Amino acid sequence: MVFSSTLLENAVNEFAKLPGIGKKTALRLVLHLIKQDTNDVTQFGETIARMREEIRFCNRCYNISDTELCNICSNKARKQEILCVVENIRDVIAIESTQQFNGIYHVLGGIISPLDGIGPEQLNIDSLVQRIQKEDISEIIFALNPNIQGDTTVYYIGKKLKGINIRITTIARGIAFGGELEYADEMTLAKSISNRIPVENYIGEGY
Amino acid sequence: MVFSSTLLENAVNEFAKLPGIGKKTALRLVLHLIKQDTNDVTQFGETIARMREEIRFCNRCYNISDTELCNICSNKARKQEILCVVENIRDVIAIESTQQFNGIYHVLGGIISPLDGIGPEQLNIDSLVQRIQKEDISEIIFALNPNIQGDTTVYYIGKKLKGINIRITTIARGIAFGGELEYADEMTLAKSISNRIPVENYIGEGY
Repeated sequence: MVFSSTLLENAVNEFAKLPGIGKKTALRLVLHLIKQDTNDVTQFGETIARMREEIRFCNRCYNISDTELCNICSNKARKQEILCVVENIRDVIAIESTQQFNGIYHVLGGIISPLDGIGPEQLNIDSLVQRIQKEDISEIIFALNPNIQGDTTVYYIGKKLKGINIRITTIARGIAFGGELEYADEMTLAKSISNRIPVENYIGEGY
Repeated sequence: MVFSSTLLENAVNEFAKLPGIGKKTALRLVLHLIKQDTNDVTQFGETIARMREEIRFCNRCYNISDTELCNICSNKARKQEILCVVENIRDVIAIESTQQFNGIYHVLGGIISPLDGIGPEQLNIDSLVQRIQKEDISEIIFALNPNIQGDTTVYYIGKKLKGINIRITTIARGIAFGGELEYADEMTLAKSISNRIPVENYIGEGY
């Protein structure tokens, strides 16, 4: 692509550095911005730059945060004794968006994956164990992806917590809502049968 | 989507304003930027904002420009007597990228399209006629999209230029390179036969 304007070229190159955005898409985005109000575009640039400069990770749970302690950790209305362990920030956003969980989080920052060279010492696991020893936590919920890496991580942390009197659970695995039995893989179907739940738990008591 | 960080939420919302970028993609882009060096992200924001603040349109050809006169207009090595008329800046970039055209441009800023409420007076047509009267131009090449709007625009401008001694051409329409005859539409095939060209023009003289 040949540009007659350096300003345009630089802006296109900056957008094209983003994942999944090629030169043509970058050009489309920049030409869109050229049509917008100058103040709006200045605000766009400043918002992004300011976000990167000021954003930090919560000292306690490693969630993304505007302050030393994140909104969730510092929210007194949330149950501080129920701790949900997740792989990354995206999972926090996904669970928060369900509005079904009222406890607190611990973000591991990844998952144990020897093939990718990620061992337990690179994750926020020591700090998790320390939290459980120090804070008054009664239950840990593992909300990790249902694959070998996730199960390995649950197993590893579970062993570290041996001897500590605490309830340890994982989120339910099974047939997804709207999914069809015949298309489910055998592993999922097998687990959903062995971990079957009483109907009153499923559709509420007094059905 | 529920965010625990306002900085994150604002950045995601800014990206999600861009065309073709939804909330999930916006989040992916922002989380990517969080992993980058702060200086790089600051530069990203500043480059975009600066581009919008400083970019302008060439006084003469309405191409996008860093200065009053664009790089192409002020380039003495380019043939100032051959003028290529295009719809928009994207077309300038497309033609420049072929590196086959060494003349100058005139960007109409759109195309005559009564259905979309775009008439000749909203386009840079008057200034085009003035340029042709004032500047020493020997040929105008229309490089507009081959559709009704493009043809209408060529027809309208052609009538305005009646009586002026100037060569008027349009880019060739025909079967695209790599295209297949049997899949070409009738109109294109018909025009490519009636406007057939001598083989020596096509593959060069002395074949």
